[in-house]
Amino acid sequence: MEKEIRDVVMIGAGPSALAAAVYTTREDIDTVLYEKSVIGGLAAITDQVDNYPGFPDGIPGLQLADQLQKQAERFGAEIEFGDISAIKDMGDYKSVTVDGKEVKAKTVLIATGSDYKKLGIPGEKEFYGRGVHYCATCDGAFYRDKRLVVVGGGNSGLQEAIFLTRFATHIDLLVRSTIKASEILQHDIQQYVDSGKITIHLGTTASDISATDGKVSTVNAVKDGQPISFATDGVFVFVGLLPNTQFLGGTNIELDELGLIKTDAHLQTSMKGVYASGDVRSGATMQIASAVGEGATAALSIREFLEEQKHAA
Amino acid sequence: MEKEIRDVVMIGAGPSALAAAVYTTREDIDTVLYEKSVIGGLAAITDQVDNYPGFPDGIPGLQLADQLQKQAERFGAEIEFGDISAIKDMGDYKSVTVDGKEVKAKTVLIATGSDYKKLGIPGEKEFYGRGVHYCATCDGAFYRDKRLVVVGGGNSGLQEAIFLTRFATHIDLLVRSTIKASEILQHDIQQYVDSGKITIHLGTTASDISATDGKVSTVNAVKDGQPISFATDGVFVFVGLLPNTQFLGGTNIELDELGLIKTDAHLQTSMKGVYASGDVRSGATMQIASAVGEGATAALSIREFLEEQKHAA
Repeated sequence: MEKEIRDVVMIGAGPSALAAAVYTTREDIDTVLYEKSVIGGLAAITDQVDNYPGFPDGIPGLQLADQLQKQAERFGAEIEFGDISAIKDMGDYKSVTVDGKEVKAKTVLIATGSDYKKLGIPGEKEFYGRGVHYCATCDGAFYRDKRLVVVGGGNSGLQEAIFLTRFATHIDLLVRSTIKASEILQHDIQQYVDSGKITIHLGTTASDISATDGKVSTVNAVKDGQPISFATDGVFVFVGLLPNTQFLGGTNIELDELGLIKTDAHLQTSMKGVYASGDVRSGATMQIASAVGEGATAALSIREFLEEQKHAA
Repeated sequence: MEKEIRDVVMIGAGPSALAAAVYTTREDIDTVLYEKSVIGGLAAITDQVDNYPGFPDGIPGLQLADQLQKQAERFGAEIEFGDISAIKDMGDYKSVTVDGKEVKAKTVLIATGSDYKKLGIPGEKEFYGRGVHYCATCDGAFYRDKRLVVVGGGNSGLQEAIFLTRFATHIDLLVRSTIKASEILQHDIQQYVDSGKITIHLGTTASDISATDGKVSTVNAVKDGQPISFATDGVFVFVGLLPNTQFLGGTNIELDELGLIKTDAHLQTSMKGVYASGDVRSGATMQIASAVGEGATAALSIREFLEEQKHAA
C-alpha cells in the first residue's frame, strides 16, 4: 500500500504556521500541521497581546490563538498532535518522522518557534505574563512609571534594560557573574548608571519571585553568598533563546550562530522545498505580527514550488 | 528658529505603515505618517478581507483599516495628509519634502505600496472588489465553480489563470496582442487549454464590463476589429504593478527591475536610516499579512537605529 504524499506538512501550530495554513488551505493545498505542545504557541500563553495589528484595544493571547486556529480550520487545515524527530530529503518528496512514523510531503514548513530560556526559580512560571516577562517590546509598555528588575548580563540583557528605561522609573539589573555584552552596549549603559536610572548588581543570582496580594512585589537573590531583595513591579528575563530545531540534527538545513534556521528571500531553507517562518527563522523578531506575515509569505512560496513541481512532473 | 527633527517619518498610511506605527508609538518613538490618498491603503478599498490572520470569518477591508488606524492612534501616532516629493540624506538627518515644505527626520519608513495597473474601461472601477479583482490569492476562492475572465498575457496573467483553475469551472484568457510570458508558463498552460479549462483569446481587447441585476455578467471585447462578448461571474486583471516610488527619482535608493525598493534583511534601503516595507518593497507579496509583518519588523529595526544613533551622539 502506497502512502499518500501530502502537499505540505507544517511543523508547529503557532501563529506563523496557522497563518500559512489559512493561505494554503484557502487555495485548496492539502495541509496538515503537527503540534507537540500548545496550539497557538507562545501567543496562546500570553495574557494580553497589545500590538498585534488589527485589534485596537489588544486581544487576550488565548483568544487570538483560538481565532487563528478557527480561521485555518475553516478552510480545511488538519491540526494534529505529534512530535517530529527527523526530516529527510528523498528527492521527489520529503520524509517527515512523526511520532516514529513516516509522513511523506511535497513541501515542509518549519514553524516551531523558539522558547525563551527560563531561570527555573519559584514564582517564574506562576507569574508568567503577569509580572514575569521575556519580551520588552511586547510588555515593556505595561510598566510606565514602575520599578523593574531585569535579569541578564549578555547583549540582550543590557540592550533591553536600556530600552525599558523609556518606561520604568528605575531598573535593577541582575547579572549572575560578569557582564558578557558588547563593549558598545557596556559604554551605552553607563549614562543610565550615572543618572541613577539603572543599578547593575554583578555576581547576583535571582532565587525566587514573590508576590503581595497576587502581584509581583519582590525578587529575592543571592549576592556573594548573602541574601538580597529587590522591590519591584515586574521582572524581565533575558538569558537567551532556545530555537526548537533539535529534530534538524543530521540534516543539511543550515542554522545561524544562535541555532536559528537560515532562509533565502522566499523563506526557503537550504533544503529545497523546505521553508521556515516565524520565531525559528534567522532574523526572527519574536513578534506575532512578523511571524504571521512570514507565514503568509512562506505559503505563497510553497504554492509556487508546488506548481513548478506539478508542471515539471 | 530651528525645526524639530522627528524620530520617524512614515510615507504612506496603509497596513504596513500603520502596523509599524503601532510598534514605534507604543515604544514612545515620535512618529508621523503622511498619506496622500486613503488611510488604510488598498485594504481600505477591499470589500471583504478573508485571509488576514486573526479574523476567522473575514473582515470588511474598511473595518480592518479603521481598526489599524485606531490602534496606531491609541499609542500616539500622528496621521496627516500630505504628498512627498523628495527625500534627501543630510548626514545627521533626512530631509523629507512634504507638500513643498521640509520635514526633518532621524529615520524614514517608505510604505507607499503599489497600485495595480487598470484597464481603464467602463465597469472596472464600479465593480472593483465585487466582480473585478487584481489579486487571485486574495479573491480567487470566492469563485469556486464559477466562470471567470482573466485579462493579461504576461507572466502573471498566465500564472494566475492557471492558479484560478483551482476554483473556476472555465476561464477565458484575454490577451491584447500576443503572449509575453516565459516559455515554461506557455508550456504549463497548454494542458489546461487541451482539457478545455482555459480558452486563450489572442488579439482581444476588453472594452467594457457589464452587469445584470448588479452582478458582473459580461465582458465585452474587440477581437480583430469585431465585437465579442464573454459571459462570466468575475474578472481578474493582471496587466502589471505601479510601485509608488516616483518621489525617489534623484535619490540613491536602489530599485529592482520592477521598480520596487530593494532592502536588506533588516528592511533597510540603500540609504542608511531609510527603511521600506509592504507592497513597495522588492519581494512584496501584495498581501496585508506580509505588509503588516514587515511593518513590525521595520519598526524594530528603526528602534535599533535610533538607539545606536542616540548613543553615538
